[in-house]
Formats: sequence, structure tokens, C-alpha cells
Amino acid sequence: MDYNKIINSAYSTIKLIENHGNIATYIPELAKVDPLKFGVFLQPINKNGCGVGHFNERFSIQSISKILLLTLVYKDVKSDLWKRMSFEPSGDAFNSLVQLEVEKGIPRNPLINAGAIVLCDILLDLYSNPKKVFLDFVRKLAANNSIDYNTAIYKSEKETGFTNYAIAYMIKSNKNLKNKVDDVLDLYFYACAIEMTCEELSNTCLLFANQGVIVGSDERILSKSRNKRVNAIMQTCGFYDEAGQFAFKVGLPGKSGVGGGIIAINPNKYSVAVWSPKLNIKGNSVKGMKFLELLTNETGSVF
Amino acid sequence: MDYNKIINSAYSTIKLIENHGNIATYIPELAKVDPLKFGVFLQPINKNGCGVGHFNERFSIQSISKILLLTLVYKDVKSDLWKRMSFEPSGDAFNSLVQLEVEKGIPRNPLINAGAIVLCDILLDLYSNPKKVFLDFVRKLAANNSIDYNTAIYKSEKETGFTNYAIAYMIKSNKNLKNKVDDVLDLYFYACAIEMTCEELSNTCLLFANQGVIVGSDERILSKSRNKRVNAIMQTCGFYDEAGQFAFKVGLPGKSGVGGGIIAINPNKYSVAVWSPKLNIKGNSVKGMKFLELLTNETGSVF
Amino acid sequence: MDYNKIINSAYSTIKLIENHGNIATYIPELAKVDPLKFGVFLQPINKNGCGVGHFNERFSIQSISKILLLTLVYKDVKSDLWKRMSFEPSGDAFNSLVQLEVEKGIPRNPLINAGAIVLCDILLDLYSNPKKVFLDFVRKLAANNSIDYNTAIYKSEKETGFTNYAIAYMIKSNKNLKNKVDDVLDLYFYACAIEMTCEELSNTCLLFANQGVIVGSDERILSKSRNKRVNAIMQTCGFYDEAGQFAFKVGLPGKSGVGGGIIAINPNKYSVAVWSPKLNIKGNSVKGMKFLELLTNETGSVF
Amino acid sequence: MDYNKIINSAYSTIKLIENHGNIATYIPELAKVDPLKFGVFLQPINKNGCGVGHFNERFSIQSISKILLLTLVYKDVKSDLWKRMSFEPSGDAFNSLVQLEVEKGIPRNPLINAGAIVLCDILLDLYSNPKKVFLDFVRKLAANNSIDYNTAIYKSEKETGFTNYAIAYMIKSNKNLKNKVDDVLDLYFYACAIEMTCEELSNTCLLFANQGVIVGSDERILSKSRNKRVNAIMQTCGFYDEAGQFAFKVGLPGKSGVGGGIIAINPNKYSVAVWSPKLNIKGNSVKGMKFLELLTNETGSVF
Repeated sequence: MDYNKIINSAYSTIKLIENHGNIATYIPELAKVDPLKFGVFLQPINKNGCGVGHFNERFSIQSISKILLLTLVYKDVKSDLWKRMSFEPSGDAFNSLVQLEVEKGIPRNPLINAGAIVLCDILLDLYSNPKKVFLDFVRKLAANNSIDYNTAIYKSEKETGFTNYAIAYMIKSNKNLKNKVDDVLDLYFYACAIEMTCEELSNTCLLFANQGVIVGSDERILSKSRNKRVNAIMQTCGFYDEAGQFAFKVGLPGKSGVGGGIIAINPNKYSVAVWSPKLNIKGNSVKGMKFLELLTNETGSVF
Repeated sequence: MDYNKIINSAYSTIKLIENHGNIATYIPELAKVDPLKFGVFLQPINKNGCGVGHFNERFSIQSISKILLLTLVYKDVKSDLWKRMSFEPSGDAFNSLVQLEVEKGIPRNPLINAGAIVLCDILLDLYSNPKKVFLDFVRKLAANNSIDYNTAIYKSEKETGFTNYAIAYMIKSNKNLKNKVDDVLDLYFYACAIEMTCEELSNTCLLFANQGVIVGSDERILSKSRNKRVNAIMQTCGFYDEAGQFAFKVGLPGKSGVGGGIIAINPNKYSVAVWSPKLNIKGNSVKGMKFLELLTNETGSVF
Repeated sequence: MDYNKIINSAYSTIKLIENHGNIATYIPELAKVDPLKFGVFLQPINKNGCGVGHFNERFSIQSISKILLLTLVYKDVKSDLWKRMSFEPSGDAFNSLVQLEVEKGIPRNPLINAGAIVLCDILLDLYSNPKKVFLDFVRKLAANNSIDYNTAIYKSEKETGFTNYAIAYMIKSNKNLKNKVDDVLDLYFYACAIEMTCEELSNTCLLFANQGVIVGSDERILSKSRNKRVNAIMQTCGFYDEAGQFAFKVGLPGKSGVGGGIIAINPNKYSVAVWSPKLNIKGNSVKGMKFLELLTNETGSVF
Repeated sequence: MDYNKIINSAYSTIKLIENHGNIATYIPELAKVDPLKFGVFLQPINKNGCGVGHFNERFSIQSISKILLLTLVYKDVKSDLWKRMSFEPSGDAFNSLVQLEVEKGIPRNPLINAGAIVLCDILLDLYSNPKKVFLDFVRKLAANNSIDYNTAIYKSEKETGFTNYAIAYMIKSNKNLKNKVDDVLDLYFYACAIEMTCEELSNTCLLFANQGVIVGSDERILSKSRNKRVNAIMQTCGFYDEAGQFAFKVGLPGKSGVGGGIIAINPNKYSVAVWSPKLNIKGNSVKGMKFLELLTNETGSVF
């Protein structure tokens, strides 16, 4: 399959579409991004990748970091991870406290804020310097030591991320957080502030298309079974309360972030990262979703 | 792949497992089923199928009928179907009224009771004898004119299905039901009361594995795109608030019913029906889910 | 205290106020009422009553009937009434199903629709002709045999009151309704369709100001203790999710209806009925509430 | 009326009743209180008060402080107070976040935690040393400069009151908190940690029975109208989701705290404070409520 031709064809279609939606503004630093940016990079597991548009500019990966936090925890922990969170779609907005209160501080899944906050709590127990461990892990997956976080975004979220503080204290009051809220959120905001290009992001996530093994180094990160589970969670929970919409239109496991990025995985074939900052009201990139729909019409989905 | 060998191997494992769970008793007729029944039938798209256990005994398909109602509606209607219901996971129990009230009578998806009730309302508008049309449609998919409904179960649900009346009146009060509640539910209870064997069920649903085309007659029922959508909806919404669990363990689109049946679809490969009446607290067949987990460990899932 | 002077003074103020709000239109028959109607009648326990405006025209008492249903049940039943419903403010709209689902079909209090529906179910168990018993009871309280119900409104609600059907089936599915939904709602809609003038309504409810004894006949209907309880329930639950607003502004036990009527009780002093059809968004009469506020500024409230 | 005789009679009855319920343990310091303590003090507006039991021992007033915070704010502020919170019963537990999320950070009333936290935020804007201002205010109402807070309880709540942090951050994220969460909660926990005897508490709250004027100094704190409103709020919102129960059984405005104290107001007659540490599952003192029920059977309620 000539992926280069397919993404260029989809790109020429996408350019003609009106640039709907709005940039995330609740994090002041994110509001500064140029709304016209658009990039995509597709990385097959067994040949060279190809990109179009601004695929070589870094953006804030935001919630996409949740699958990396999950992977870092899940590669080592025993099954009691699933006592501290569930893996069901929430049917609710990404930052809802209602469900968390009713369900006694047990987050619905690791890809909503509450779940990722518990993942950070686990990492604080596992490592004495979890921020360094996380960054090193991401760099290893990407095979790229230049990947880093954005200090301004990190600080911005730390000062204004009140909903995340509310979520974390709620979990803490339900005894599902062992460390101090400030310490847990410090790691959480750090992870959200990681920046990557589309090319870097697709390479970082290629292991999910490769049954849990890093392409290149051949290092196994997740067992085949656990890799399947991460994909299953992305499929059912990766798009807030638009998981059905994404499964419906794209049909691949994936994860979006309010920075306008989306990663999607075509198992045993490729990973693809797309970036377009304007979001729909559910918080997902408008042109990003449209591009992936066009792409999978050509390359096939899991269904 | 030798499916016969695989399902026999999985069957010998499943026989050793304790028969946990409880039979559905809220419908008096269902409570009479022998809890020790277990059957499975796997039907590939391009060769003979194979079954084990009680694969040749009929059981009440119950909520599995929802995908057949959806298919009968979706094969003809225009896109305004998605104005009357959504296609997102509900994150809630199958009969919850809370979400329906908050969301103004728009069901979350076609595979919860509220959604299927709206599908029935649409069928009442489309056809003067919708019960006959539905049964004929199911018989065509199955290539089997002996398939029928169980009168006792139909009457039993009609007399005691108060929650479904509450749901239907709630939708009606939100002006999302055009016909009389009694007429709509008459079709709904009729569809739930259809009985099939595992073999018949796997054949009925084989079109979903075959891109929307009936195997044998080669009649196209759903466009390739709409068939993908039906699979996507089964994947994200087919198991009440256990969709994540099923995606996690089995990794195939599917649909369960409180009669203990489950249908699962491996796109482009096969459909498989399993039946074991004891249910977990979420209302899904315990041994049925376990069997499908063992099966997909061997035959592969979509991830 | 010269009540005649006080209500005339308040009336001259109220006439100058703009006639905000909207007439209830969800019951087609109610939509036909002249929005400019305004009447009030104050009946002291120990002297002649006095009225202004259209105090001698009948209107649909609607939800005010709930306190009469409660009284008819409560005067006879044992304490197990409070196993079938609670007596706490709902903090929610009058017809919310959310709370009812979460609380397993046990209505929050007898003055929301769900509670009054359970009251009707109890009356069906107590009496073979509950509609006649109810009307006779109301006529006795009012010492007025001409009081009757409005057939058109009764039929209108029976045909279009889908939310009440949803509520009743929800209670039925939780096994808190013994009789058939249609029979229970028949009594419910009948009670809502009773019509009275302000003068008749204030006389009907005067017993609540007189420690449970009908003024005139001296017949005790409620024990002193149970009468206190009815007043307490009106105080905390009589105004949907505006109970605090009413306690805040008026400070008397009371009950409103979507026909624009309000009854209020000043214990040991008087009952007062006011009628003005335009409602605020909470479903309470705008001018009615304002009038009672002016009145209690002069006559005192319970605080 | 011989209040001394009445409270002694009720006391002899209450001593015979089994000491049900449980001491609050979520604040470690509160768990140390002797569960057998029982005290009461009734202070009429125009004669000497009388007490029985441990009426002269101090206990933690906890949530009773909310009416004092409300009074300190309400005596000065303009009506925009009611833009930042409502005054309706919550129909929910005292620390529920669900309602707060749905209602966009606007607390239901000033007597739940969320409401009192907003009151503290307002006091931080009004005063440079709000803790001192609050303590001085309470001492003035009580005419007693020895009243103080308990350092151990204050620190205990500050370290473990995670739910209150969650509530405060939730309000902050909805832009209904101007100051830093830590500063706001510092005042909140301080106010909750105030200790009083029954005698001191009944004297502190006597102004609410005296139309807003301090008995003794004759200083007006609240206008007659605002005093009525404070009583109305206590009546409808003073007992978490047991306001109906209290109105039903006692029939007076009041406020309870998890320290086992309750204050109740009989307008124009008296205030009464009762203390018994064992709580029912709603968080209200079991014997305290029972005592007030016996008392108002003799002294009359507002109904």
C-alpha cells in the first residue's frame, strides 16, 4: 500500500475543508498556537514513514501522554492496577467529578484525567524521580533524546488546573491516592506538557502497532496480551465521550489531546499522528478526526 | 486455521470452570432454562462452520435482537436516524433512565433498551406489519424459515416489563416517539422473544463479518461503510457497562443478551455464537465471555 | 388585625407590577386560561374571610390536590406510609426521574408527582370507589357540595401526561405500586383536575391552620401531631425546587399548582389562597408568590 | 411556661433511651469525645436560661459555625451574595460534589460545606484578618471573651479534610472563589473548630429568636427581614438531607454539627442548644434530635 500517496491525497482534500472549531484556551499557553497548523506523519512498522504539512513542528501532546503513563505503569505492575481504576468507557466528559464521586474515587479508565492521576500516584511509589523516569521512557520509545517538556505550559497548568486539583483531592478523600496531591499533580502536569512533532509521536507509539515491541531496538515493553489491552482501552475510552464517534468514523484505537494532536494505531500495520489545533466541543481535533476518517477509508480499519 | 480444533480445545477448558453467575429471573419464563446448557457455533465466511455442546438448541436471543433491529432500520433510513439517537457508550446500566432524562429522550446508542425502542418506533412508521417484516428479515439473514418467537416469553415481558414502559413513556414525553407506547413495545418485546440455536445465530450475523453481504445469497444488506459502523457500535456499546471488559478480554465487536447468548464478529473471518445461561452482575454470560476470550487468544482479535 | 385592609393594600401594590412569567401550556386545556386573572381569599379561623379580585372564579388546583390526597391517606393509615415514601425536600424538579431511579422507586416526599402517585395507589387499596371518596372528602373539608372536577382537563392530562406514566411505571418496576398504572393515574389525573375558587380553596385548607380540625363542623381530620407534620412537609417540600425561596420570602407552609394557585397556612391564624396563572420557570405563580410576600410582611410569618 | 420543668422532664425521658448511633471519626480528634456526654441549655429571650446534664462542657460546634459565618457576611453584604450561592435545600449529602458540578460551582445554600466555603472567600475579601474578625464576632454575640477554637481539631481537619479541598477547587475551577483555596479553607477549618458549651451556644444564637438583635446589648446585627431569612434557611437547609425529618419532628429552624451539637430557634421565644456526640447515618445527633422533639411537643413549634 502506497501510504505516501494516500496521505497526500487525503491532505489535499482536508485543505479544502473549512477550519471549524476552537483552540483550547483554558490553558493560556495553548491559546497562543497558530490555528492554521496541520501536520500528519504515518509510520509503518516495516518501512519508511511519510509526512505532510507541519509534521516536523512540535506541539503539546497533552492527554496523549496518558497512554504513555499507562504503558510505563502497566509494563511492570501486577494486576492490582485494576483495583485502583476500571477500564470502561465513562460516557461522560473527560473531567467529570460526578461519576468519580458515585464510584467512590475509582476512576472509570486510565485515559480520563482521574485515571491518569492515579497512574501518576503509582509512579511516585515506584520511582524516586518519576519525572526523569517518565521522560527517559518516552525518549527510549521515540529513540530520540531531544524530546522534552514545555516549562511555560507546565507552569500554566500547575497554576490554573483547578479542576485537576478537585479531582485529585476527591480521589484522595476516597483513599485511592497515597501521595500528596501536589506531588502527584506535579508529575501529571509535567507529562501533559511533553512536546513532540507528528513524526516523533508516531514513532513513540509505534510499539502499540507492533504487539508491544519497540521497532528498531526490538525491546519488548508490553506483553502481547497487555498490548492488546492498551489498544482495547484506546478503542473504547480514547476520545472522552466521543469514543463511539471515533470508532464509527475511523475504526482504530487512538487517543486525542487538547493540543490538537491525535495518535491512532492500525494493529500490525502502522501508527499515525495528526495535528490540527482547532477542537470540536468534545475537545477532539476537527481536521485531525476528518483526516483519519479519509485515511482509514483507504487503508482499512479494524472492522 | 483449524477452527474445529480450537473450539474443541476451548470447550474442554471451559467445562472445567465452575459455573458461576445467575440466570436472569426478572422474566419468569427465562428462569426456567437449564443453567447447565452450553453451546457454541463458529461460522467462517468461506468454509463450513463447526459447533460444540448444545449448539443445536434454541434459546431466547433477547438483546441480541437489537443489532437485527438496527440493521433492518439502518439498511434503508437516511442519516436522520442519528438525530433520534446517538452512538456513544452509555457508561451506564442497560436500562438506566437517568441519562435518558438528562439527555432529553435521546438514547445514547441503539443497543441499549431506549435506543432499540426508538428503532421499533421507526419500524412502525416504515411498515404496516412490522412484526412480520422483522421476522421475515431475520429468516432471510439466517436462510432459515423455521426461526420464530416464543409466545410465552413475549407475553411474560409484555406483562412485567415495567421498566421498558417507563423508558418508552420517558422518550414519548420528550417527543422522540411518534407511535403509541403500547404499539412500540409490542414490537420490541416480540423482537426480544425470537429464539435461535447457536448455529442459526452465527449464520444470521455472518453478514457483519462479510462487509454487509449475506454469505450464500450474496445479497448486500448494508453498505461497506454502514456495516463498519454497526461493528463499531457493537465494539463500543455491545456489552452494557462492560464494553471495555469485552474489548479488553475478547477484542471483537459483539452483543450479549440476558438469555445467556453472545454473538461476536471477527471481521472478514467469522461470526461466533455462544450460549450459557448464567450471567454476571452486569448481565453478560459468564462462560460465554470466558469462551470467547480463549477463542480469540488463538484466532486473533481486531487489535 | 384588619386582614381586609392588608389584602387590599397588597392588592393595590400587586396591580402595579408587570405580569411576568408564562402560563402552563403542556396541558392544552390550561393554556386557555386568561393570564390576567388575579384573585385572593384569606380565611381566618375565627372570623369572616375576605377576598379581592377574581376570588370567586374557579381554577384548576392541579398539584395543590396533593395535600388533599396526603390528608385523605394520612388521616387513616398507620406509619408504614413512610416506608413507601420519604418526606425530605427533593432538591430537584417536580417530575424528575433521576432521583426516583437512584432511590429505588421510593419518592422523596408526598408533594412531588411520584409521591402523589403512590398516595393514589394506597387509596385504590383502601376504597372501591376512590374517585368518589376523594371528591366527597374535598367537599366535606370545603363544606361545599358543588365542588367538582373539570372533565376536559382530566382527559387532556390522561392523554398527554407521558411523564407521569414514566414515573408510575418506574415506581411499578421497583415494586412500590400495587395496582395497575392506568388505574392509579386515573385517580391522580382526576384529583389534579379538581376546580375551586380562592374562597373555596382557603376554606378547604383551613383545617391545616386549625390544628387538624374542620372549622365549623369541629370534626377532627388529623391529630394535632399529624397536622403539624403536614405543615412541616408543605414548608420544606411544597414548592418543587423553590421551597427555600418560598420559606425565605413568605415563611409559611404552602403548596402551589401549575394552574397558578397557591395555598398558604399561617398556623393558628388563617389560610390564604391566591391565584394568578403566569408561572416562573420553576412552575410557581409569580404574582401569587409576590402577593404572599407582601401579606406576610404585615401579618407575620412562622419565623 | 416553666422551661426548667419541661427540659428536666424531657431529660429524664431521654436518659432511658438507648444511646444509638456513632461518633464522627473522620476527624481523628473528634473520635476522642466521650459518647455518653449529654447536655442541653435553653435560653429564653426575656428570662433566665436553664440547663441540664453536661451543659457546661465545651464541644466542637463544627457545622453550626456555618450560621455564624452566614450572619457575619449577611449583616454587611449587598444582595449579590445570592448570585454566588442559592438558598434551596440540596436534597443531598452535606459534602456532595455532584450537584456542585452540575450547577457550575454555585452552592445550593450557605449551610452546606460548599456554601460556607464561599462565605469564607467573601470574608477574606472583606477583612485583612478574617479569623480574628470572626472570633471577635462570635465572642460579641455570646458576650463571652473566653470562647476560642481548638488547635488540634483545626490542624486535624486541615491535614485530612480532602473532600473540602476537592469542593473548594471545584468552586475555584468554576470561578466562584476569588482567593487561594488554602487561605479560604484555613478560615473554614478555623470556624469549624470553635468550641462552646451548650449555654454559650444558646446565648450566641439567641439573636435569631430575637428578630436579629443581641439580647442584653440590644445591638441589631441583622435586619428583621434578614433575620427571618436566616431562620428560613435553617428551617429548609439546616440538617443536610434530613431537613424534612427535623421540620417533621421538631418544627423549628435549626442547625446541627458532626460534633453532636444542635442549635434550634423558637422565634420570639427562645434558643436551645443540645449536645450528644452519637450521630445517625445522616450526621445528626440522635439524642439531640429526640430531645428537641420532646421539648417542642411541650413548648410548641412554628407550625
